[in-house]
Amino acid sequence: MLYCLPDSEIERFVEEDVPYGDLTTSLLGIGEQRGEILFTTRDETTICCTEEAGRVLQKCGARTSFLSPSGSHLQAGVEFLKAEGSARALHAGWKVALNLLEYASGIATRTSRIIQTAKRVNPAAVVVTTRKSFPGTKKVAIKAITAGGAQPHRLGLSETILVFKQHTAFLGGLDAFLATVGELRARAAEKVVMVEAENEDEALRVARAGVPVIQIDKMPIPDLGQVVKRIREINPAAKVSAAGGINEANVAEYAATGVDIIVLSSVYFGRPADIGVRIVPKN
Amino acid sequence: MLYCLPDSEIERFVEEDVPYGDLTTSLLGIGEQRGEILFTTRDETTICCTEEAGRVLQKCGARTSFLSPSGSHLQAGVEFLKAEGSARALHAGWKVALNLLEYASGIATRTSRIIQTAKRVNPAAVVVTTRKSFPGTKKVAIKAITAGGAQPHRLGLSETILVFKQHTAFLGGLDAFLATVGELRARAAEKVVMVEAENEDEALRVARAGVPVIQIDKMPIPDLGQVVKRIREINPAAKVSAAGGINEANVAEYAATGVDIIVLSSVYFGRPADIGVRIVPKN
Amino acid sequence: MLYCLPDSEIERFVEEDVPYGDLTTSLLGIGEQRGEILFTTRDETTICCTEEAGRVLQKCGARTSFLSPSGSHLQAGVEFLKAEGSARALHAGWKVALNLLEYASGIATRTSRIIQTAKRVNPAAVVVTTRKSFPGTKKVAIKAITAGGAQPHRLGLSETILVFKQHTAFLGGLDAFLATVGELRARAAEKVVMVEAENEDEALRVARAGVPVIQIDKMPIPDLGQVVKRIREINPAAKVSAAGGINEANVAEYAATGVDIIVLSSVYFGRPADIGVRIVPKN
Amino acid sequence: MLYCLPDSEIERFVEEDVPYGDLTTSLLGIGEQRGEILFTTRDETTICCTEEAGRVLQKCGARTSFLSPSGSHLQAGVEFLKAEGSARALHAGWKVALNLLEYASGIATRTSRIIQTAKRVNPAAVVVTTRKSFPGTKKVAIKAITAGGAQPHRLGLSETILVFKQHTAFLGGLDAFLATVGELRARAAEKVVMVEAENEDEALRVARAGVPVIQIDKMPIPDLGQVVKRIREINPAAKVSAAGGINEANVAEYAATGVDIIVLSSVYFGRPADIGVRIVPKN
Amino acid sequence: MLYCLPDSEIERFVEEDVPYGDLTTSLLGIGEQRGEILFTTRDETTICCTEEAGRVLQKCGARTSFLSPSGSHLQAGVEFLKAEGSARALHAGWKVALNLLEYASGIATRTSRIIQTAKRVNPAAVVVTTRKSFPGTKKVAIKAITAGGAQPHRLGLSETILVFKQHTAFLGGLDAFLATVGELRARAAEKVVMVEAENEDEALRVARAGVPVIQIDKMPIPDLGQVVKRIREINPAAKVSAAGGINEANVAEYAATGVDIIVLSSVYFGRPADIGVRIVPKN
Amino acid sequence: MLYCLPDSEIERFVEEDVPYGDLTTSLLGIGEQRGEILFTTRDETTICCTEEAGRVLQKCGARTSFLSPSGSHLQAGVEFLKAEGSARALHAGWKVALNLLEYASGIATRTSRIIQTAKRVNPAAVVVTTRKSFPGTKKVAIKAITAGGAQPHRLGLSETILVFKQHTAFLGGLDAFLATVGELRARAAEKVVMVEAENEDEALRVARAGVPVIQIDKMPIPDLGQVVKRIREINPAAKVSAAGGINEANVAEYAATGVDIIVLSSVYFGRPADIGVRIVPKN
Repeated sequence: MLYCLPDSEIERFVEEDVPYGDLTTSLLGIGEQRGEILFTTRDETTICCTEEAGRVLQKCGARTSFLSPSGSHLQAGVEFLKAEGSARALHAGWKVALNLLEYASGIATRTSRIIQTAKRVNPAAVVVTTRKSFPGTKKVAIKAITAGGAQPHRLGLSETILVFKQHTAFLGGLDAFLATVGELRARAAEKVVMVEAENEDEALRVARAGVPVIQIDKMPIPDLGQVVKRIREINPAAKVSAAGGINEANVAEYAATGVDIIVLSSVYFGRPADIGVRIVPKN
Repeated sequence: MLYCLPDSEIERFVEEDVPYGDLTTSLLGIGEQRGEILFTTRDETTICCTEEAGRVLQKCGARTSFLSPSGSHLQAGVEFLKAEGSARALHAGWKVALNLLEYASGIATRTSRIIQTAKRVNPAAVVVTTRKSFPGTKKVAIKAITAGGAQPHRLGLSETILVFKQHTAFLGGLDAFLATVGELRARAAEKVVMVEAENEDEALRVARAGVPVIQIDKMPIPDLGQVVKRIREINPAAKVSAAGGINEANVAEYAATGVDIIVLSSVYFGRPADIGVRIVPKN
Repeated sequence: MLYCLPDSEIERFVEEDVPYGDLTTSLLGIGEQRGEILFTTRDETTICCTEEAGRVLQKCGARTSFLSPSGSHLQAGVEFLKAEGSARALHAGWKVALNLLEYASGIATRTSRIIQTAKRVNPAAVVVTTRKSFPGTKKVAIKAITAGGAQPHRLGLSETILVFKQHTAFLGGLDAFLATVGELRARAAEKVVMVEAENEDEALRVARAGVPVIQIDKMPIPDLGQVVKRIREINPAAKVSAAGGINEANVAEYAATGVDIIVLSSVYFGRPADIGVRIVPKN
Repeated sequence: MLYCLPDSEIERFVEEDVPYGDLTTSLLGIGEQRGEILFTTRDETTICCTEEAGRVLQKCGARTSFLSPSGSHLQAGVEFLKAEGSARALHAGWKVALNLLEYASGIATRTSRIIQTAKRVNPAAVVVTTRKSFPGTKKVAIKAITAGGAQPHRLGLSETILVFKQHTAFLGGLDAFLATVGELRARAAEKVVMVEAENEDEALRVARAGVPVIQIDKMPIPDLGQVVKRIREINPAAKVSAAGGINEANVAEYAATGVDIIVLSSVYFGRPADIGVRIVPKN
Repeated sequence: MLYCLPDSEIERFVEEDVPYGDLTTSLLGIGEQRGEILFTTRDETTICCTEEAGRVLQKCGARTSFLSPSGSHLQAGVEFLKAEGSARALHAGWKVALNLLEYASGIATRTSRIIQTAKRVNPAAVVVTTRKSFPGTKKVAIKAITAGGAQPHRLGLSETILVFKQHTAFLGGLDAFLATVGELRARAAEKVVMVEAENEDEALRVARAGVPVIQIDKMPIPDLGQVVKRIREINPAAKVSAAGGINEANVAEYAATGVDIIVLSSVYFGRPADIGVRIVPKN
Repeated sequence: MLYCLPDSEIERFVEEDVPYGDLTTSLLGIGEQRGEILFTTRDETTICCTEEAGRVLQKCGARTSFLSPSGSHLQAGVEFLKAEGSARALHAGWKVALNLLEYASGIATRTSRIIQTAKRVNPAAVVVTTRKSFPGTKKVAIKAITAGGAQPHRLGLSETILVFKQHTAFLGGLDAFLATVGELRARAAEKVVMVEAENEDEALRVARAGVPVIQIDKMPIPDLGQVVKRIREINPAAKVSAAGGINEANVAEYAATGVDIIVLSSVYFGRPADIGVRIVPKN
């Protein structure tokens, strides 16, 4: 899913920051001079949105001369994007490109690290990320978690089935819903029905009803290990997913419970990656 | 600046998450039932984007019955937004509204806390925030930092003058630039000329040239206090601003150096606010 | 999934047809007179996009006074949408609203009829519709097939897994792919893996590899019945779906083969529903 | 009018179908392999939107190596569009490009055939198409009817004058309107005034009033021939146009009545053209 | 054609001027106070875009309490638009609404005056306006000329036929074109064919070819009167239109030549109307 | 600030004028012929938007072969933009490109002349332009005034502080405001506080309060000279700006008063530059 963002999105990023050019460059009268811009990792980084950062610089009038693709795992100190053009173009695109690289690479790097941590403990576990990215940033966020090795849990509400208690409340509760879940599965023949459970008792009732994926929300880790075992006894084919508050610090413990799927949002926020930039005059 | 986001932005948030409605609600056949949705703080929170969250729910077909305005400082456990409508509408808007509230209120709350911390030490210090918000989120981000009590340092490149070494490199260096700064100030008669300095020596040269705002980037705190004093001696009217890596943990120390302006980006990222939601059937 | 189309889509429909108002109404000088517009079925119809047609009229300046919701099954001669306003508003919105109603209700009605036909023969069969709607019309098309009782097979490429020979060609062919399908299923833990087969031999190889949904493209109906039986013997839990050229005329035969899922595009095109409109002056 | 669609429209087509890339290609890990895509007619076809299909593939990352222009009349089995690129690019653009080609070429081919049929009987007849295309598709639809040899009857309401009874109802009826039609013609000095008549009596009254184009809606064919003659007697310079339910099956009979203009919508809907596609790995 | 501008256009106007609210109001802390805004003519004015100005204020959060419709001819000193709301809303919308009113009413008033001047001399003359409005402002410009009593000559290139020498140059010159103009007229059965002539000789050749509208560009007024007479002799049914440099100062002379149609661009530019505004606190 | 307009703006200009191609070119059958288009100054002109005019022609299918950059000061009769392509492309882009060049160059040329006039009298005076451009045209307008040598006074409401009596009315009047202006200046540490005065008395009170920029609206020129002197006595560091009705005819007198800043809107409107175009067939 290392797709390219649409042009309108690139334009949106530029317009948001430089709607009428860089006033400083303009008043200093340096716009026509030629230079080069170079982006370098400062830490070990899974870079993301280098293609889009390049297009930002191009929209501003520069020419990209080199870039490493999104998803590259780089050591600290590696130069991965270079462009040249007028000082006007370089100054217009500098921070827009940098900002995009830092936020996207921050997500990709956290995702990559969290997956490595989980896999070390439970190589079969799959890490997926929720819909809880910053509103308006889904194109960047999904590209970044994919660059980091994860998959989207749900892109949105229209393409997956996940039953919350907020749904079953309108049906008379969990058991009333579970009585009809077979029918739901038959009607949704090409989808996986997933049901969220909030405690062990709910989880087991969901498993007994034959639901293929039981998502367990915010359960203490020791209890979770216990529930995974019991679900396996009830239905060895069922998948168990854990969600709610999982992050780099606790993912190993979650993975160790034997769950099949780890659902998390924490990669979406946190400190952007630290990326160095130089702008150099060049004749 | 507690403006309202444009409709196209609200629509963008909804379309991103529920482009074709909530499949789960649809397959469960509960869409026409009536219910209520209630949002509550879980921690002490400076809430933001309640107006927009209400409009998200309205776009989905619900009716907002109550909301506390953006910028309200609430204790934990306070209900601040309520809407009612069909289960279809409530499920469509639930997470979009929640997500928007959590990210925006996270920024507002961090901003508010950081300002209180800074003011306790240095009541005259002004806190402003950089252009480094997540690409594509500036409308939310600027509303949120304003709700938290800060002002934007720069909305973008087109409306302020801030001279970086990346500019002066095209002019032959800092001193060559400073030789002409008076002329720049005359031509930019309605703007404040700001110049970034990276060390004490640069800062003092900038101050001697009569620049009204000297922005000092990533200077160790003890050195910074020293520089502030020397700049005061050179030009008592000059303002000193500190930038680079300032956050809730170190803002008090920065404030204590006596700088006039604290420039930071750290409020833009970090954990979203934790907000509780209930959806309740209602006849 | 009887969601509402976004405002920008409603505006797009109006702008496309009446960018500068109705020249005829303007030149006749009748714009300020008041009137009413009434929409009536001419045949038995599953109506769709009445909400959007109402919003089209509102954007043009009229006021909707009555509408039957999308998905209503109406006999011929039933009035289902009424609005009032100036002649300017009614003439501006008339054909845009009508056109939208006729295309959307055409799709909904064909869908509804095809499902009834299929269910009469095979009540368990599920009818789903492909991605092959007219480019740029997916919001209308998906609403319409849902109003008619179908579900989308895939909303697009980003949310489902369907392996075509055009994919396996890059892997060394079908068998090379099938050798790794277990791993794919493990990595895509929350998705149903679907594989397309073009003949009996392929279908059985796919079934033997444990693929949960085997989609069979353009197979003659007698052969299809045969294949369904053989797949059931290999894997009773597998679902068989039939695709390629299925329409109202042949759907009963396809359903009679015992397939679980019927995938079709034919509802998207064909004659729009025939809907009557009257515009009546009113004081 | 073989214009090019705007970029925003091309982007809209792609975003609608592959908002986050092709999940299948991504999970199979084949995205970086190289291949070629080839489009071929399966029937005699007037192709349309080859330029746009090429741009769809380019937006997805492929490079178009060959295309026949929109409006080309091709026999079955002719290859007319070829592109190469990564499997990721080819899979992302495949169905979007195909779908666009099939819908547009379906319209163009029906238009071309209907014109040939009409011209065989009445070489002077002009075929024009109404505003009744699928909402949101006018750019494609008008390009396609032009590729097929027709012209638009009206692009929308803002640029032509066509008086319906729904207009005259606000003026006191047809005769009241006709009493003032001379004045209307004088004020609309650069436009052709067209008036719709629903029966012979109306048509003759309109002709007597000197209206230059009399559009006759849904009249039985024998009556139509009669009316055309009578109108010629009243005003030899008047043009007669026939509208309402004209399609490939009956256009010859309509043309044989001697009408000057044939107005129809039927080309806009109906089965898309059948176009073959191959995707071939290539090193 | 006193249509309403689409919402996206209103939003565009607001976003262009107040993307993040009014900083001054915000810093002064007066945003929550209540007030009223009142717009008054300072001169005799044909007002235009009052509906849109009202919507601008509403988008900013105010409530319109009164407005006179676009096209009203008002004396100096008449109040025609009033809204109330918070100081934040009033200050955000003030200049956007005013600016829109002043530019649109400037165009409408110039148009109205020029038509009155022309009609005084030649009551049958029709005034139409060209495509030469400021790029991106056609929606406002066409509404304004209609409010002032004119009609659009051409909304754009896609809906009218006007043959320039820049077209005939590709056909071998004017006479080569005129030899085929009958065929063009037959094919464009629902359109008026217009041909531009640059001197008397050309005009007469065009008239002799039976072209229904001869547009004469930049001809000295005495010559124009002469040509009109000669064209009448050649073809009494032909319309003559004059274009090129016509404005309020010379329109009477042009009208006196007896031309049927006066084509002009001059109303689109010139001083905006002068409109007074008051903002009044109100409890 | 000689930035490039975004693609969506270029597309908007083209779509507004040629949504479905040039009907005339299409009906004449000349679309495929090749030609060249050449743009030439007719008067001494500061050209603007040549880059965008070139992109307009490219969007239509032509290829730009030569252009002089925006901001070039050209004598009459100089060719400054040349493109070649099909007659279809050249006719589609001709007037859109021309119109853009004429409006933008009109603004740039007026700006350039007014600055020269002002500087001759008062070389230190700075000319800035208001927010009062035609709604929806700010991107063009700001580029044009910059090309002409001016700077924007304010890009909008969100980035500058200018206190009007409409603000102070909510604070209890000018003096109540001035009592707190020191605090405002402290809080807005990176901005210049500007206050508008409507007469001498107000101006002096504002100056005495230490406001750094006093903007004086619509004051008779002799009085203005007087006020400037008195303000200098009160606060030699204060800047005085004059606004309201300043244009090419009176700018010298305003400049002669000794004001520091001249604020004007008059360059935004007035006659577009006169630019010649030739389209030449070319094989």
